[in-house]
Amino acid sequence: MLHGGSVPHLTPEATLAPVLSALESVLGSARPAALHQPHFAGREWAYVKDCLDTGWVSSVGAYVTRLESALQDYTGIAQAVAVVNGTAALHVCCLLAGVTAGDEVLLPTLTFVATANAVSYCGAIPHLVDVSPVTLGVDAAKLSAYLAEIAELRGDTCYNRRSGRPLRALIVMHAFGHPAELDALAEVCKRYRIALIEDAAEALGSLYHGRHVGHWGLLSAVSFNGNKIVTTGGGGAVLTNDAALAQRARHLTTTAKQAHPWAFIHDQVAYNYRLPNLNAALGCAQLEQLPDFVSRKRELAQRYRQAFSHVELGRILMEPQDTRSNYWLNLLQLHPAYDLLRDTLLEACQARGILVRPAWELMHRLPMYRDCPRMDMTTAEHVERQLICLPSSVDAGSVDADSIDRASPHA
Amino acid sequence: MLHGGSVPHLTPEATLAPVLSALESVLGSARPAALHQPHFAGREWAYVKDCLDTGWVSSVGAYVTRLESALQDYTGIAQAVAVVNGTAALHVCCLLAGVTAGDEVLLPTLTFVATANAVSYCGAIPHLVDVSPVTLGVDAAKLSAYLAEIAELRGDTCYNRRSGRPLRALIVMHAFGHPAELDALAEVCKRYRIALIEDAAEALGSLYHGRHVGHWGLLSAVSFNGNKIVTTGGGGAVLTNDAALAQRARHLTTTAKQAHPWAFIHDQVAYNYRLPNLNAALGCAQLEQLPDFVSRKRELAQRYRQAFSHVELGRILMEPQDTRSNYWLNLLQLHPAYDLLRDTLLEACQARGILVRPAWELMHRLPMYRDCPRMDMTTAEHVERQLICLPSSVDAGSVDADSIDRASPHA
Repeated sequence: MLHGGSVPHLTPEATLAPVLSALESVLGSARPAALHQPHFAGREWAYVKDCLDTGWVSSVGAYVTRLESALQDYTGIAQAVAVVNGTAALHVCCLLAGVTAGDEVLLPTLTFVATANAVSYCGAIPHLVDVSPVTLGVDAAKLSAYLAEIAELRGDTCYNRRSGRPLRALIVMHAFGHPAELDALAEVCKRYRIALIEDAAEALGSLYHGRHVGHWGLLSAVSFNGNKIVTTGGGGAVLTNDAALAQRARHLTTTAKQAHPWAFIHDQVAYNYRLPNLNAALGCAQLEQLPDFVSRKRELAQRYRQAFSHVELGRILMEPQDTRSNYWLNLLQLHPAYDLLRDTLLEACQARGILVRPAWELMHRLPMYRDCPRMDMTTAEHVERQLICLPSSVDAGSVDADSIDRASPHA
Repeated sequence: MLHGGSVPHLTPEATLAPVLSALESVLGSARPAALHQPHFAGREWAYVKDCLDTGWVSSVGAYVTRLESALQDYTGIAQAVAVVNGTAALHVCCLLAGVTAGDEVLLPTLTFVATANAVSYCGAIPHLVDVSPVTLGVDAAKLSAYLAEIAELRGDTCYNRRSGRPLRALIVMHAFGHPAELDALAEVCKRYRIALIEDAAEALGSLYHGRHVGHWGLLSAVSFNGNKIVTTGGGGAVLTNDAALAQRARHLTTTAKQAHPWAFIHDQVAYNYRLPNLNAALGCAQLEQLPDFVSRKRELAQRYRQAFSHVELGRILMEPQDTRSNYWLNLLQLHPAYDLLRDTLLEACQARGILVRPAWELMHRLPMYRDCPRMDMTTAEHVERQLICLPSSVDAGSVDADSIDRASPHA
């Protein structure tokens, strides 16, 4: 996967120069070049203004329903339930997948912390697994071999033989927009009676074998945070093909209030997680532009690939076979011989107003998840040192980005 | 407190007629008359459009800081931390007050379910207490007598002698905007080393002994839900005079991410609870109008009081002595002799497009809180049957309400 190459023999400055030059050729001269900033070029103001004019700004309103319909149409997934953010969506996915206190939930060590936090909110324990060097998502073969060693089916429940706790679910995260190996992962989950949840927070617009991600999970989560391909300010959604689960998601995110013309009867401990109509209005305008945004981000990925084709230091990570990535964040993967230069490169770019960043700190290195059960993490530990996220806004390097005079939000 | 009066001897229709007539005299002819709808008459457009124009819509942005400053200035409370909604604010208050799994938290049975849910999110157990017939908030004298019976101090921790669990905090809720007996309640908490939290979700603009509510709690929560006196679509804030607690609130609501130019190091299980800038922009415009909104809502309360002064069926509940209520929702309190007519009256009003509602179902009657520890609930059980919330929008019954052609959100 990594190209061969000679060991570094130049000064760091000379070694980094081709990278900086490649970045500049893609990004043009506008600085700062944000990591990912929103792009509002459609009916955002019209819809938001309509909310203000009608007074419908809160969690009941037509834009919420419309956003859900648009998500259903776009993804082909039968049911969408809009919520306040991707973290809330993941939490609801876990709850509806039956995750309860004392369970273990498998999830990749290479992810944003919300994936693990959502499990913690249920009182359950993240059980961390390694990732594939190709997809950067959960490694299906390695997971399968690991489960053969530690898992045990008793009736319809899978247990971790070592801890004695149920292995209730697997959360697969589509890292940086690249789809994980869904077929193989779904097969493993089926074999072990483990619920599959897709954390598609970064992957709206990404296809696996021609179908939108989110179809393989019992439940899936997407995010509309300000740094995502489309944004509602803050927001997210639960996706599922199961109408009964969607109904329960609606109930659970609206304080479990029973329908009644006036009475306030709530029938379980539940949440205030519905997306406000104001944010949904913004989302409706953004979703209308999603096909265009995906095209533009895929073109940007090609421009990066081209620009880095002769850079010895590393290569641009391209989408896995038989997938269409939304290329939420483009990744420069440093050659192992150069990975010690990562922080120097991060500093050099930031100093030039090119707002790159590394991958997330691995979950098994964070203080609150350090003692969680986990497998060998060789691949994640290698890959994490090599990754640099590159500026990837829809309008990165384009004329309209240059022409906007503004500081860079969501860096 | 309740005026005397003869027992009912007329038909329900004849008995209800004066109530309907009083309501109509206050509300004018516009229908539906919403229970509480937002009023956008300030710079809402300008600020929200500014967010879109600059691209700053998410959880980092100038309007969030500005909203927090405006809240600090208005309430006189040193620190405000804006969050996604009032429920999240209450959850953070509980966490920072030290509430952990297995603790008990005292809270009134007459409240919106979020007060109890926030405790459940911490793995703690609501311990339900009765309310005062004057304030509709926690009855300080009754609580004091109850704690003398069940509570025991061991070192600096108060225990429930019956369950053996720590009584970690008391959440006082300012029901419908009317301040609870804060001095007496704070004294009880001090005596028993119980942390005081104010649930001021409904009470922005309400004063107790001349100071804004929220000053008495170690931490307090306000809400900007669509049905509140000011709205951000969905939103809320944690208020505290303790700078260290505010700092922890900021950390806890931003996934506990440590400050760093690029690294993603999170140091505890935490939340994605910060308010998006888009919603904060709306809130800034709304807060500018809050003094006016409070005046108008207080005038509306006087109009209700006047209109109902000769109605035998019940009376308008007025603010407790030495307080200034924001009169979030005006309340008709039925005379005990007439409380069986409550549902008939609710139906008659709704049928006429006057969107009244009862108080919340009492927490100790909800299935998930039925078995919680609790005291005798005589007052709450009496009062709950007698209360009807009346339409209380800022512009209720005014000409501009009549002139707006719209359905009624947030009913």
